[in-house]
Amino acid sequence: MKICRFNFDRIGLVQDAMVLDVTDRFNLQPAWPQPQGDWVVSQVPGLLADLAQATPRNCRTLSLADIRLESPVANPGKIVGAPINYHAHIEEANQDQEINHGHTYTTLERYGLFLKAGSSLIGVSDVIEPRFPDRRTDHEVELAVVIGKTARMVTKEAALDYVLGYAVGLDMTVRGQEWPGFRKSVDTYAVLGPWIVTSDEVPDPNALDLELRVNGGQRQRSNTSRLIMNVQRLIEYASSFYTLHPGDVIMTGTPEGVGPVKPGDLIEASVQSIGSIEVRVASQFAQPR
Amino acid sequence: MKICRFNFDRIGLVQDAMVLDVTDRFNLQPAWPQPQGDWVVSQVPGLLADLAQATPRNCRTLSLADIRLESPVANPGKIVGAPINYHAHIEEANQDQEINHGHTYTTLERYGLFLKAGSSLIGVSDVIEPRFPDRRTDHEVELAVVIGKTARMVTKEAALDYVLGYAVGLDMTVRGQEWPGFRKSVDTYAVLGPWIVTSDEVPDPNALDLELRVNGGQRQRSNTSRLIMNVQRLIEYASSFYTLHPGDVIMTGTPEGVGPVKPGDLIEASVQSIGSIEVRVASQFAQPR
Repeated sequence: MKICRFNFDRIGLVQDAMVLDVTDRFNLQPAWPQPQGDWVVSQVPGLLADLAQATPRNCRTLSLADIRLESPVANPGKIVGAPINYHAHIEEANQDQEINHGHTYTTLERYGLFLKAGSSLIGVSDVIEPRFPDRRTDHEVELAVVIGKTARMVTKEAALDYVLGYAVGLDMTVRGQEWPGFRKSVDTYAVLGPWIVTSDEVPDPNALDLELRVNGGQRQRSNTSRLIMNVQRLIEYASSFYTLHPGDVIMTGTPEGVGPVKPGDLIEASVQSIGSIEVRVASQFAQPR
Repeated sequence: MKICRFNFDRIGLVQDAMVLDVTDRFNLQPAWPQPQGDWVVSQVPGLLADLAQATPRNCRTLSLADIRLESPVANPGKIVGAPINYHAHIEEANQDQEINHGHTYTTLERYGLFLKAGSSLIGVSDVIEPRFPDRRTDHEVELAVVIGKTARMVTKEAALDYVLGYAVGLDMTVRGQEWPGFRKSVDTYAVLGPWIVTSDEVPDPNALDLELRVNGGQRQRSNTSRLIMNVQRLIEYASSFYTLHPGDVIMTGTPEGVGPVKPGDLIEASVQSIGSIEVRVASQFAQPR
């Protein structure tokens, strides 16, 4: 099942080139205070059987080509990032002073996981607004994991039970010497989309091709089999420090081939079994408004 | 004005030893998706005149001694932390291998700001649950700034216009070599309280004594005049990377005197003009449940 958010907060199921509007099957009256986790994602596990009944006969149906796709998670409690999680990316980072800024990267456990600000999140129909004309902003394509139920101190053997599904993630990054949680939290620097593919359609998340192109030219190409900490281990590791809640997103790390984007660029990214996204970099750097 | 959250999500005004229940003056039907920012804090600037009319004659009134105090912000979009923001703390960190783990700290701009996970947040009537028996968990008392209106690329000259008020923050910290955003995001490792004191009562946030005691013994004592990046500059710096929304919290950094806590400890902390808190460290380390 492919679950999307579209056209200013409608919830849809994507079937081939069609989107079925299933918004009315959700309770859209959040409680206050917001319970931990995303309000809508929290409801999905209990609605899967109901959602499976949706057809073009009992739902308003739109053409996928005509809609605006928003981040499939509206309010993730956490966007967790995994640094240096592909060997070939560690090697390129350590060879490129513009990436490493004098630091030699070793292993993920040396640094732990980082957080991207929720305020940085956009969907694929939004625009990445580049910041800091004098610094590099790099593309990083990643497999994104969307948590479906509360995960606290779970083992890697049980970890996939806590996954709702997967999406394509762009972990846009300002290069520099600061900790990545700061440089990667700029407004619009987290892209999630095009939808969540539920985990039943992705039997092995650690065997997916992923690719990124800029203006048509291939920049990144790898397979999640090359993840150093695979999806299960990332969930185990994250949940040993903090509780993961429904809608929390784990960006699993980027393979080699990272590089700068410039205003006006078109980024295309895809992850096997999930889908493809096209996101535009705005033609101007961010300005005070 | 002192605004608290108490007794399972009531909203109160603290007046001396009394709490006036002003919950009914707020709209507690959040929209979905949750707009950026905390739902209740977003309403406070527009309700200040109304709240000023609250008296024991027109509000249910409770004794402060009898209530459970919760984090005054229920759902901060971001909890921003400032590392090494007092010179004397940088010196002690660089002298103590158990704090620096082989790293020599230089300046805040070298590292940027970090994020503490929203899932780590508790109030002062909750309990800090220590994790990792083989690692140090340290206390860090801080002045916490609560943002009141959306701040994007603001100057330090205008920064205080975006502040709703101030609270006492504990930035509990597991020591180790990982980036602080990970080690400081453990469940229950962010404490905010006892309430928000609105900024009209704190004319200069950069001139406040702060202190922390463990089991009665003084551990930290300083004044926010010794902040390297003061409150205005922190807001300017943060908002140059990401938009701050109502309810976002900036923990401004801790002075010297940090040190380990152990199960069962009682932490008392105070910030001048804000208030005092007492928080207990649980008697046992966190366990899988």
